[in-house]
Amino acid sequence: MAKDFPTRDENFSQWYNDLVIKADLAENSAVRGCMVIKPYGYAIWEKMQSVLDKLFKDTGHVNAYFPIFIPKSFFSKEASHVEGFAKECAVVTHYRLKNAPDGQGVVVDESAKLEEELIIRPTSETIIWDTYKNWIHSYRDLPLLINQWANVVRWEMRTRLFLRTAEFLWQEGHTAHATEKEAFDETLTILNLYADFAEKWMAIPVVKGVKSPSERFAGAIDTYAIEALMQDGKALQAGTSHFLGQNFAKAFDVKFLNKENQLEYVWATSWGVSTRLIGALIMAHSDDHGLVLPPKLAPIQVAIVPVFKDAEQLEVISEKVIPIRNELEAMGISVKYDDRETQKPGWKFTEYEFKGVPLRLTIGPRDIENGTVEMARRDTLEKMVFPITEVTKELPRLLNEIQQHLFDRNLRFREANTYRVDTWEEFVDLIESKGGFASAHWDGTAETEEVIKEKTKATIRVIPLNHVKEEGRCIFSGKPSSQRVLFARAY
Amino acid sequence: MAKDFPTRDENFSQWYNDLVIKADLAENSAVRGCMVIKPYGYAIWEKMQSVLDKLFKDTGHVNAYFPIFIPKSFFSKEASHVEGFAKECAVVTHYRLKNAPDGQGVVVDESAKLEEELIIRPTSETIIWDTYKNWIHSYRDLPLLINQWANVVRWEMRTRLFLRTAEFLWQEGHTAHATEKEAFDETLTILNLYADFAEKWMAIPVVKGVKSPSERFAGAIDTYAIEALMQDGKALQAGTSHFLGQNFAKAFDVKFLNKENQLEYVWATSWGVSTRLIGALIMAHSDDHGLVLPPKLAPIQVAIVPVFKDAEQLEVISEKVIPIRNELEAMGISVKYDDRETQKPGWKFTEYEFKGVPLRLTIGPRDIENGTVEMARRDTLEKMVFPITEVTKELPRLLNEIQQHLFDRNLRFREANTYRVDTWEEFVDLIESKGGFASAHWDGTAETEEVIKEKTKATIRVIPLNHVKEEGRCIFSGKPSSQRVLFARAY
Repeated sequence: MAKDFPTRDENFSQWYNDLVIKADLAENSAVRGCMVIKPYGYAIWEKMQSVLDKLFKDTGHVNAYFPIFIPKSFFSKEASHVEGFAKECAVVTHYRLKNAPDGQGVVVDESAKLEEELIIRPTSETIIWDTYKNWIHSYRDLPLLINQWANVVRWEMRTRLFLRTAEFLWQEGHTAHATEKEAFDETLTILNLYADFAEKWMAIPVVKGVKSPSERFAGAIDTYAIEALMQDGKALQAGTSHFLGQNFAKAFDVKFLNKENQLEYVWATSWGVSTRLIGALIMAHSDDHGLVLPPKLAPIQVAIVPVFKDAEQLEVISEKVIPIRNELEAMGISVKYDDRETQKPGWKFTEYEFKGVPLRLTIGPRDIENGTVEMARRDTLEKMVFPITEVTKELPRLLNEIQQHLFDRNLRFREANTYRVDTWEEFVDLIESKGGFASAHWDGTAETEEVIKEKTKATIRVIPLNHVKEEGRCIFSGKPSSQRVLFARAY
Repeated sequence: MAKDFPTRDENFSQWYNDLVIKADLAENSAVRGCMVIKPYGYAIWEKMQSVLDKLFKDTGHVNAYFPIFIPKSFFSKEASHVEGFAKECAVVTHYRLKNAPDGQGVVVDESAKLEEELIIRPTSETIIWDTYKNWIHSYRDLPLLINQWANVVRWEMRTRLFLRTAEFLWQEGHTAHATEKEAFDETLTILNLYADFAEKWMAIPVVKGVKSPSERFAGAIDTYAIEALMQDGKALQAGTSHFLGQNFAKAFDVKFLNKENQLEYVWATSWGVSTRLIGALIMAHSDDHGLVLPPKLAPIQVAIVPVFKDAEQLEVISEKVIPIRNELEAMGISVKYDDRETQKPGWKFTEYEFKGVPLRLTIGPRDIENGTVEMARRDTLEKMVFPITEVTKELPRLLNEIQQHLFDRNLRFREANTYRVDTWEEFVDLIESKGGFASAHWDGTAETEEVIKEKTKATIRVIPLNHVKEEGRCIFSGKPSSQRVLFARAY
């Protein structure tokens, strides 16, 4: 672990890449565009999974598992879906290798060609709706509220660790309902669940909204999303919840007998968040000293570093520390007591700071004499001295305070970087200079949206759900508009 | 759910298939050889995962994630590994589809051909050791104790739900050590961990042993396994732990500086269990009435069925039941209070019996009068009446008793079906008629093993670790042998 990496101001993009690598979160693999998620990065994903999984189950969802392969023909069944997904994907064409004729390695056995190629799932609507066809016959079989934790593959040409990789991990929910209203309510239930997760666990405030038609999920009637603002003024889509209407039910002919004994197409939603959230977490909170993690998602919440000259001193310190560690762990706090003799305290301080451990406790012989302990907060880099007897009381309070502080800091940042913009010049200037969310009028046409994107690289992130109707004129075309939408450059 | 399925005696194989389908555990998908794991089956897997994950972490392991794709050339680096794995596998050759020229669907875009084909991992030793090369430089980087939860693909021609599918879910541990002894100890630590899991959670007694050379993992020095006996007398390999020596370190050139400052190849292990364990669980315990699940892995441990004529009666019952359910849930017991009015109690009894719920409670108006409740055990089908005030005390005790009873019953079964066999005639007769484990002498040659397999379809399951050295003569060749090994037909 080293500090020779650029500051955010110098080069945000390089700062991000270096941080991911040097904090041991992930790295590029031998396979183009695919990442290796290292244990420390994976531990963050496990924490996210465990919270989200509980939130899904508490709202009545269950997990299942569907095949990674999708027959090629399935994609053609939903017209807009194939446009959006089937193009850049990994295609399995053969099922056997054989020894090379020249004895050097193995080659594809051309005699083992699949009759129909298989696509590695980029998303699972098609294989799942093909399966639901056999599961749904009557209104009594509904709703189906199913989630899947899985890997998916999208053959991205330009990849970045966590943010955009050829393979990534995610969860995808796929629900089936008897009525339009139920499916619509589910879409919003999940949108709110995602927003709660982002705000209460990730400590990142998000804007809830609906996407413009051109940013919709391929196959959806409406796509809802939560959008977060990163420290460089770019937006990041942190989760999407799609109201699919009856599109997939029609494509896969999934009908049910309703209470009136009439055959009707089923209503659907799908929704997902991915390992991309780890990228958001990093870019929202971290600083020029390294990673900053919100306590609720930090794999190690507290690191305790003893300062000692010899085994005898360490023993005296450990006698004090171990009961404290045990008590904290019993409270559900994850503690690392780093009593390694192979590394010096200074090295450990830098290490835990760099890895974003929310609280560090230091205790040396003088602390033992004074009955004190030093606590260092990662978010503010403040140091405080507490009586050792107070540690188990103060520490949970401090963790909560850090969690709240990170959220508040982010909210202030977003508020300071969300601008009401009313002229094209202001708009261009904002997007090109400091970035941030531009709340501006738009004439509602895809053409205008496209031109704005071409000229500024800014896209409509969402039409916010909590917006106030307001008459105005489109920032670009000057045509009438009834509401402001949020523009930004985005990851 | 229906009972029109064969008994175990009539047709064990059909009984198994029907049970898996009718108990809503899994089904075949639209993709040849791949299964859909349905919510009830997946809930069992989640229970298994959660226990195993904790056991791994308690023994110092951490999780990570490696790419699903393996460059074809990686397989050729370990000579025996390629023979064992690279042949029957899914091969990705292209990364794009395009609209078909005739406008009908999509076709593979031949211009998007990969330079080097990618294999969907059948197991991850090669990609992981290629990665470890960059992680390991000195003895201070060791040991690496990493586990991965993942999907893998092996292009099996004859598949069976859970037991053998083209895609399956598993965990694969891959550890790196500074010394042979450490790696060897790790191999046995995991073998013992797997055995504990099988016996204490799955309630299935297992034989721990080492595989004969021909049954070894491709690339291993030694493969250790746990073997269980199913009710039809066939064995099932329930987990393997491989001592890989320095084979993969040599293949991928992974060296470290030891404490004496000398470069040395790293020592390795790998080990895994998969969704196949669900197949074992079913075949070990279930009966002609349906699934039987050990309480520790049952998604629903207790089902409570109210018997009522009208809403008023249900209300009186619910008033009694809900506090009991809450108390049980607070104890960590998973309870389903099935107060649906759409299904009759009789239907529910059959349903929970079929789905293997360990305990069912029934409570009707007469029970309310008498202050009693009826409990039905799934394992013995016994019914008992308890005072309602005793439920929260009796129920945890009964769950433990069922867990223990299932293990004991299996152990008795295995003991009754393990035979010391000393002549070829006895051997053939045993294998062909009732099956079971044949403990017999073997001359130690692969030739004899192969002939025995050809003639009887029985293989050496393991050379048990706890065996007593004993002079004897090979069951087939009559040549001298120093120990008995366990033969059986196997899944």
